[in-house]
Amino acid sequence: MKVGYLGPSGSFTHNVAVKAFPKADRIPFANITEVIKSYEEGLVDYAIIPVENSIEGSVHETLDYLFHQTDISAIAEVIQPIKQQLLATAQDKPVGKIFSHPQAIAQGKKYIKSHYPHAQIEVTASTAYAARFIAEHPDKPYAAIAPVAAAKEYDLEIIGKDIQEIDENYTRFWVLGHEPYVFDLIKDTQKISLALTLPDNLPGALYKALSVFAWRGLDLTKIESRPLKTALGEYFFIVDVDNSNHDLVTFALEELRVLGITYNVMGMYDVYCL
Amino acid sequence: MKVGYLGPSGSFTHNVAVKAFPKADRIPFANITEVIKSYEEGLVDYAIIPVENSIEGSVHETLDYLFHQTDISAIAEVIQPIKQQLLATAQDKPVGKIFSHPQAIAQGKKYIKSHYPHAQIEVTASTAYAARFIAEHPDKPYAAIAPVAAAKEYDLEIIGKDIQEIDENYTRFWVLGHEPYVFDLIKDTQKISLALTLPDNLPGALYKALSVFAWRGLDLTKIESRPLKTALGEYFFIVDVDNSNHDLVTFALEELRVLGITYNVMGMYDVYCL
Repeated sequence: MKVGYLGPSGSFTHNVAVKAFPKADRIPFANITEVIKSYEEGLVDYAIIPVENSIEGSVHETLDYLFHQTDISAIAEVIQPIKQQLLATAQDKPVGKIFSHPQAIAQGKKYIKSHYPHAQIEVTASTAYAARFIAEHPDKPYAAIAPVAAAKEYDLEIIGKDIQEIDENYTRFWVLGHEPYVFDLIKDTQKISLALTLPDNLPGALYKALSVFAWRGLDLTKIESRPLKTALGEYFFIVDVDNSNHDLVTFALEELRVLGITYNVMGMYDVYCL
Repeated sequence: MKVGYLGPSGSFTHNVAVKAFPKADRIPFANITEVIKSYEEGLVDYAIIPVENSIEGSVHETLDYLFHQTDISAIAEVIQPIKQQLLATAQDKPVGKIFSHPQAIAQGKKYIKSHYPHAQIEVTASTAYAARFIAEHPDKPYAAIAPVAAAKEYDLEIIGKDIQEIDENYTRFWVLGHEPYVFDLIKDTQKISLALTLPDNLPGALYKALSVFAWRGLDLTKIESRPLKTALGEYFFIVDVDNSNHDLVTFALEELRVLGITYNVMGMYDVYCL
């Protein structure tokens, strides 16, 4: 079985792929669009991509692509705590330059300021790229902010542990596919993610759409607007609904349709926590 | 009078600054945070930053900074059509490499494929940087995708006019400040932008918040969730409300407060179109 994921090795997505599919042939791709395309083209059986981070918000590349371009849907969600480490090739080396993704740099700013106030900061495309880059230059005074998995992958030492400022940092990942799969992970809840397109202008239509869930006591865990890419002020809405009472959700969806509110099911899935 | 804007010269924000404050001393800053900070520190009297694009969606750096860090508010909104040009230093030169911001490259993809299928693509931090860069290398086979303003600013020729794929491409810009200012621009509507923090979980609270506007017939032109940066699934909501009946809006705001829904006014402003 083949599983595509947002690479390179040592990324947070890679860690999710290892935990969710320990025995699969896991193939890294350079960006989110490439991961989804690899699934569309039948190169892989499942694809794993990030959907939302608790600090940075939704990953638009994922949601926009899934809404605009494809009818693939999520079969599982994996929630991973995000913890950042300061990595280097050896313990006792000066740290002159620190490499990482802008979000990881932002998260480690306080730690760097107090421990390495004179270090230069260099931006990279991902945390895993930063780790790989410093591993390739062991003679240089380089360090990288990256996950534990990257330390293992590139044989680096952790010289600063869990340096992120906000402890409550989680990322949701989706497993895209068609075939059901039994994961050896701890199951949390069941959810359904919908993309709603409203027949006319706000607020009337959105208010009606929310009524359908509200009076049935169905919890929304997320609501977010994204531009339809037609005109300024036209949006579609991504709504995540608790799916533990699926009969009630079915009634709600039928009522949405009767009200003239179009929806696609972006995924109906179990949620697992790492 | 001094006006800070997201630079460099020749950017879309620069064009808004020129049109809105033709006689001011206009000062470019390297990123959105720097522009807002320049205002906070009293270096400028007004600051101009992008808020939302009809294709790409909200500019999170702007909204998150204004919600989390400051109590500055918008005194005007300027809507500018986004049109991209292919620029070069001379008409009759091969185009081997095209520089631009990823969004502009995405917008011009079809044009490039049909006119310059063999050109390499290089990503830059902004369209204006791309224009400046190719102007600095007149001997090279370079072209840039950038706005008309950048052609004027860096003395470049337009070798491909209005190359963007989607015609309905607009960006909203906010003028931040405290003092009212009379703009010599065409006035469209009046709006108020609110950031709502809900007392408990969705959907009940958001449904109540929308009810306050819905039953009064107050149009929402936008609603969007952004993470509170506390836990996964906790959001604040940015809501833009038509403010042409300000008395009704005042009642709605009072009722929000009584319902225990906290809000900040991110701006109460006239909307101008370029």
